Amino acid sequence: MATAPSTKAKQRTERSARKRDAEVLDAAARIFARQGYASASVQDVADELGILKGSLYHYIKTKEDLLFWLLEDVHAGVEAILHEVEADEELTPVERIELYVRRQVLFNLENLERISIYYRDMERLSAGRRSEIVSRHKTHERFIERQIRAAREAGLADDGVDPTVLANCVFGTLIWTYRWYKPDRRLSREAVAENCAKYAVAGIGIR
Amino acid sequence: MATAPSTKAKQRTERSARKRDAEVLDAAARIFARQGYASASVQDVADELGILKGSLYHYIKTKEDLLFWLLEDVHAGVEAILHEVEADEELTPVERIELYVRRQVLFNLENLERISIYYRDMERLSAGRRSEIVSRHKTHERFIERQIRAAREAGLADDGVDPTVLANCVFGTLIWTYRWYKPDRRLSREAVAENCAKYAVAGIGIR
Repeated sequence: MATAPSTKAKQRTERSARKRDAEVLDAAARIFARQGYASASVQDVADELGILKGSLYHYIKTKEDLLFWLLEDVHAGVEAILHEVEADEELTPVERIELYVRRQVLFNLENLERISIYYRDMERLSAGRRSEIVSRHKTHERFIERQIRAAREAGLADDGVDPTVLANCVFGTLIWTYRWYKPDRRLSREAVAENCAKYAVAGIGIR
Repeated sequence: MATAPSTKAKQRTERSARKRDAEVLDAAARIFARQGYASASVQDVADELGILKGSLYHYIKTKEDLLFWLLEDVHAGVEAILHEVEADEELTPVERIELYVRRQVLFNLENLERISIYYRDMERLSAGRRSEIVSRHKTHERFIERQIRAAREAGLADDGVDPTVLANCVFGTLIWTYRWYKPDRRLSREAVAENCAKYAVAGIGIR
């Protein structure tokens, strides 16, 4: 069925708005990664975009808006992975953990700038926004804890270690990659992701 | 044998100098943890100590000196653990990794403020000092890689995973504790340390 012209025009407008939003976030990410959020200014981001500061203020009210949207954007990415892994009913809990770690590591390594900003500058958000971001992370912790408990109930994992500590160890494994991985090393992102997933699955005591 | 009075006096002077140094570092740690290194001033640290800024400048030339000495002090602590674990010739490579992880996690959890400053503010050091700190960390990476290779040669660990990735996974496991552990939780520091050590040892594929 052909789409009515008015809808088409609307879609075009939305697409171009999304593209502009993406360009603004990309520029903010580059500036915050290079200079640090604290010492970067809205002017720096505008300069990076090649627009006037006043034009950038059509999108945002404060510099913090840029940081918050960047962190929301990171969450949109990691949540998409969570939902895909969760939705695949063919997977055992163990396979879910393995796939989740592999894909999240890959996402981190493909978004090193943004992940660095996430963990370095999250604390600079105002209290309300910070707790919104933290609560979105909680969803992931609960997901991993649930898989660990399910794996145990199915007799697939040892039960000698605390599930909360284990879940946090899994996050330490996957998150820390952004601090040590250098893109020019002999290891491909895919190899790192796969190795980390194996370590995590073995670590939670999969038999 | 009795120590000569002049030596005793010298020891007393050294002890009191060390005590003063420790007080200065403690105050700097509290201020940097609370305000962030970037926005803290030498005046803030002097106020915390209850001394004049001029007196603090007898110890330091710049604010960066305080940060550098704090990070050196952290390294003195983690290196002491490394040397103790390395020196115990009774231990197998696997037992060495387990003991190392357990003691490093405990050290992190007992020094949460300083560890947070270490990972958050290290990048604020000037290039020369930063690379000195990074090279001290490399000693630890090589130690863990060596234990992993030795465990494999002794047939104690699987060899399907890259030792460099594994070593970094072990560091992710032990370092990340400073980001998630809250002192008021039901889990004691000792329990967290033990659980992390079990996860790491299982993760590297100990048979």
